[in-house]
Amino acid sequence: MGKHAGFIVVGSRLPGAMGQTLTEKILDDHLVEGELETGEEIGIEIDQVLTQDTTGTMVWLQFEALELDEVQTELAAQYCDHQTYQFDFKNTDDHRFLRSAAGTYGAYFSRPGNGICHQVHKENFAAPGKTLLGSDSHTPTPGGLGELAIGAGGLDIAVAMGGGPYYVEVPEIVNVQLEGELPEWATAKDIALEMLRRLSVKGGVGKIFEYTGEGAESLTIPERTTITNLGTELGATSSIFETDEKTKDWLSRIGREDEYVELQADEDADYADTVTIDLSDLEPLIAQPSMPDNVVPVREVAGEDVEQVMVGSCTNGAYEDILPAAKMVEDREVAKHTEMIVAPGSKQASEMLAREGWTAEMMAAGVNFSEATCGACIGIGHVPASDSVSLRTFNRNFEGRSGIEDDSVYLCSPEVAAAAAIKGEIVDPRDLADELGDLEAPGFTMGDSYSPGMGQDDPDIIAPDEAIDDELIKGPNIGDVPLKDPLDAHLEGEALLKMEDNITTDHIIPATSDILKFRSNVPKLSEFTLSRVDDTFAERAKQSDGGFLVAGENYGQGSSREHAALCPMYLGIEGVLAQSFARIHKANLFNFGLVPLTIDEDTYARIEQGDDIEIVDDVEEGVKSGQETFTVRVNDDWEAEAELDASERERRILAAGGKLSLTKQQYGEGDSGATPADD
Amino acid sequence: MGKHAGFIVVGSRLPGAMGQTLTEKILDDHLVEGELETGEEIGIEIDQVLTQDTTGTMVWLQFEALELDEVQTELAAQYCDHQTYQFDFKNTDDHRFLRSAAGTYGAYFSRPGNGICHQVHKENFAAPGKTLLGSDSHTPTPGGLGELAIGAGGLDIAVAMGGGPYYVEVPEIVNVQLEGELPEWATAKDIALEMLRRLSVKGGVGKIFEYTGEGAESLTIPERTTITNLGTELGATSSIFETDEKTKDWLSRIGREDEYVELQADEDADYADTVTIDLSDLEPLIAQPSMPDNVVPVREVAGEDVEQVMVGSCTNGAYEDILPAAKMVEDREVAKHTEMIVAPGSKQASEMLAREGWTAEMMAAGVNFSEATCGACIGIGHVPASDSVSLRTFNRNFEGRSGIEDDSVYLCSPEVAAAAAIKGEIVDPRDLADELGDLEAPGFTMGDSYSPGMGQDDPDIIAPDEAIDDELIKGPNIGDVPLKDPLDAHLEGEALLKMEDNITTDHIIPATSDILKFRSNVPKLSEFTLSRVDDTFAERAKQSDGGFLVAGENYGQGSSREHAALCPMYLGIEGVLAQSFARIHKANLFNFGLVPLTIDEDTYARIEQGDDIEIVDDVEEGVKSGQETFTVRVNDDWEAEAELDASERERRILAAGGKLSLTKQQYGEGDSGATPADD
Repeated sequence: MGKHAGFIVVGSRLPGAMGQTLTEKILDDHLVEGELETGEEIGIEIDQVLTQDTTGTMVWLQFEALELDEVQTELAAQYCDHQTYQFDFKNTDDHRFLRSAAGTYGAYFSRPGNGICHQVHKENFAAPGKTLLGSDSHTPTPGGLGELAIGAGGLDIAVAMGGGPYYVEVPEIVNVQLEGELPEWATAKDIALEMLRRLSVKGGVGKIFEYTGEGAESLTIPERTTITNLGTELGATSSIFETDEKTKDWLSRIGREDEYVELQADEDADYADTVTIDLSDLEPLIAQPSMPDNVVPVREVAGEDVEQVMVGSCTNGAYEDILPAAKMVEDREVAKHTEMIVAPGSKQASEMLAREGWTAEMMAAGVNFSEATCGACIGIGHVPASDSVSLRTFNRNFEGRSGIEDDSVYLCSPEVAAAAAIKGEIVDPRDLADELGDLEAPGFTMGDSYSPGMGQDDPDIIAPDEAIDDELIKGPNIGDVPLKDPLDAHLEGEALLKMEDNITTDHIIPATSDILKFRSNVPKLSEFTLSRVDDTFAERAKQSDGGFLVAGENYGQGSSREHAALCPMYLGIEGVLAQSFARIHKANLFNFGLVPLTIDEDTYARIEQGDDIEIVDDVEEGVKSGQETFTVRVNDDWEAEAELDASERERRILAAGGKLSLTKQQYGEGDSGATPADD
Repeated sequence: MGKHAGFIVVGSRLPGAMGQTLTEKILDDHLVEGELETGEEIGIEIDQVLTQDTTGTMVWLQFEALELDEVQTELAAQYCDHQTYQFDFKNTDDHRFLRSAAGTYGAYFSRPGNGICHQVHKENFAAPGKTLLGSDSHTPTPGGLGELAIGAGGLDIAVAMGGGPYYVEVPEIVNVQLEGELPEWATAKDIALEMLRRLSVKGGVGKIFEYTGEGAESLTIPERTTITNLGTELGATSSIFETDEKTKDWLSRIGREDEYVELQADEDADYADTVTIDLSDLEPLIAQPSMPDNVVPVREVAGEDVEQVMVGSCTNGAYEDILPAAKMVEDREVAKHTEMIVAPGSKQASEMLAREGWTAEMMAAGVNFSEATCGACIGIGHVPASDSVSLRTFNRNFEGRSGIEDDSVYLCSPEVAAAAAIKGEIVDPRDLADELGDLEAPGFTMGDSYSPGMGQDDPDIIAPDEAIDDELIKGPNIGDVPLKDPLDAHLEGEALLKMEDNITTDHIIPATSDILKFRSNVPKLSEFTLSRVDDTFAERAKQSDGGFLVAGENYGQGSSREHAALCPMYLGIEGVLAQSFARIHKANLFNFGLVPLTIDEDTYARIEQGDDIEIVDDVEEGVKSGQETFTVRVNDDWEAEAELDASERERRILAAGGKLSLTKQQYGEGDSGATPADD
């Protein structure tokens, strides 16, 4: 634990306690603070971090602001996957900045075009028993290899890279018992879709799913990672499989057998809940538009015309995922009115497909190949035509995500996708096999030709010791990350904007592509803050010397984007008075030093936009001392009460002016007895 | 000539005259109107037409407006190549519309992803001795196969598809004598760059280049088409090679040997000029930023750091073009700070590279593969980072074309590009070979594995008899094409906008991607008309009942885009009063029925924006009768003279309300004795 210099390390380890789940074993092994009990906040040591290009720039700018010389985790890997089409020089500048940051601070850099972070991380770095924190929601993918992988906000990643623990409430551990064997034409994707069908997209909130049983053992690593990847759609904190001979075999194929660790839940492990799925009952399933849990058997929607089929993504983008589709279209033709596009998860997958001849066969059948990119999954490229059906092997089909508002995107296995491409309409592949007579179920086979170029010899991965930059390269679009001063004793300012209930982070910082490209440029991005509510807001906030936001219920719902707190902070906002806050956004407000105060309905109703707001108490002292109720004075005329609901850790963050400022402060403290950058 | 129903066919053929150039032979064979003498306007029969996705939608909307049932040329082919990344549903809708138009009217449809029009047309349809008219400036590419191929505006294509002749002033025919043989490491690209170095980007204006001599005979078809493709950068009307055994062999490889025709210039052919190049004198050349004629030997710019290398495009995108680069990087690695991207010209090229194992080898070396698209060449995808060097095997390096304003794009051969990718800086490949010791000059070899899937059996080409649509599918972004009424006798209206000298078509209709996507939606696109000069213009023009534009010298310079006339026409503009007009834009004004009147400097100076302009004469009568001087009355106060400089054909077009209206009228005329749509 010498690494965690500057942090008070007071983890309470349960020494080899009986009846541990796999997750508890890994958490226990990494515990540096708190008690390992469901619902309790713990701090854990992070072994590996992963960042991608739309979140990574801010992470590295935050890391720069910490003024450390070097990444403190065992491994950090920076991927370029969301913007690899490089439509704008800002994307390319971002990639160059990320390369320079990885080189400067000692992270691996996966070059643009090398593939999607989850797939490339799995192939190169994911290891059983390790903890991985990633600034992408599908970070749990390597759970299929027995790694405990969790998605988090960018600032959490920056702090973890600085050697700080990651704080999380211990989730409920749920056992998913897989029994029996998959029948022909049913796949791992159908297991994940069955979970979604049963539990819904909220079914995994606050939970980690541990997959066990003979059914789990029967699955290959790529099949397991399809399931762990889709665990994110259940809302789960993570999903994980035990390790076994298949894990060992997979690691040995890519020359990493020495990283194998046997990991299993104890027989008497105590799970919060158990879900049992008999694989032999499964059939080809499909998620209808526009939610991943809108799942039905494929046969129920057969006959629907299909204009686009996409196979790949971080969910089904391994060589082994694409292989069944390749076998199905070989010596056949894609229907003339249907476009079939393969979007491999990594260049490794692309290379193996090419090397084995499948690329040529698929092209001869009429298939197009995309670069290995997140691309179409987030509406960048291959946007469906209006009023048309797209079948995708991806993980999300939220309305409009494909790039067109009223899209009609279905999620399915590569087998179901390929069947639709051949037939030109949705069809149960079992029925297509009957119809064609010579279409065999491709089954799921492991590739035999893993390339020796993988891992650290890969020209597309620049290892820390091969770094070509030793200083940050910032193009004109790379801004600095703003730091906030410690909390003032006296807070006063105008109520700059009064908003309704249910303001989302999309209202606060829109995610459209014309705005997304400024994600590494906070000054520029801030100009769009709350523009969907009031397009004069950003300008007014900048003019004003401080100020408050006022909102109704559920302020900040939606995505976890930290820019929704960072940009108001940049504009000088001091705090938010709302009737209630969405959980993640409230954490982000703490992280960026904005005071989230809860007011009641009457107070909300009385405050008008433009009113002068003053916190009567000594805020600095109150936050530090645990004070829960503060007095708000409006227009020097009337007063009301506001509540601050915050843990001790959150109060420390707030007092310091945000998590970045706090972490910086901690590194600067003489009592740590170590210069963290020297490790 | 029975096809040209509705047109008066009065071609003056020179029966097998002595001393004809190759071009004269083909023109003679297709002449339907005029005399075959340099500078004279002739009408020629068009055998094949080619359209792509950014120009094709308007062509088909114009064809629809002609109310014909079927394409009248021997062959029409619609390609989808500029927008194959499909960033926006509007692209995908356009592609679906184009498929439906091709199906409805009897054209071949090359599906998105199948490649760049010039490359795919060459592989599938281009044939010696035929005439090809295409709505893309690099249409001359198949000249390497002895086809006479010319780029033109969309309306000319629509009329040609309707069976009408194409009118062109007979260009000067220039002989390019290629002597000797290329030394190691010098390539066909260097021949084209040498032409640009010697003649400049204006050196080919009003000319057709005929390549002959032993040096020409030594070149393969892909090498020849690299040269004819780059002829466009000389400003040439077209470039062409004689046919020979190499032509025959190439056609036979793709199963089209029956289309071979022997075509040679007569020994005593009378050329306007001769350019002689001794190939043995050539060395690797490179065009520096930011003009294709800024050519120097590679060694003169060696040492410059390179961040991006792109091999492919319609210039060097054949299998045979990419092969040398593949051989050079095999078992080597792309420099860590350099991205190398292969953008094949067609899926055929992609498939052959994959089938022969080169794709896997290149990927193992760190190369990325783009879809077969125009993409990066027009700034769509792979936009260079700011302040960075990109080496491309493309044909244009105009400032900003790559997608970033101050770019630094060099043009070179695949060999020079691959050398830079390996070294990470610009290097003469001969020097790199010396340095590495084991780098052999790859030479230029013809592929042996042309796929039987090419041509009409290709799943990516939908032949007219396989059409899946029999009516037009118009998404919400596909507008109608506006038709203008015949010219009025009386023209009067406000001077809606007074502009300076040198207004470009980029001023009239900007080409930025946010506006480009509306190219098939004239009502929407028109909202941006002249917005770079005055963003109230479009709205004011719409409100006004007719009106005029007033401009200084050289109005309408720049690109040939017909929207620069079509959109003002849609907004109700009746005419343009300018001191002078750019040639192509003036033709477009005729084509869309706007009267281009030349005024003198004093008149220009006196007219104020907002003045009332009245043409005193009977305009309809005057235009029809050949009247050259018209009287302009301003504010009912003072008068000036304005000149109409127009050929008889142009006057007919103007009087009819534009070329589309005229053509429609002609088809409707009973005296044609034929219903053209019944052929």
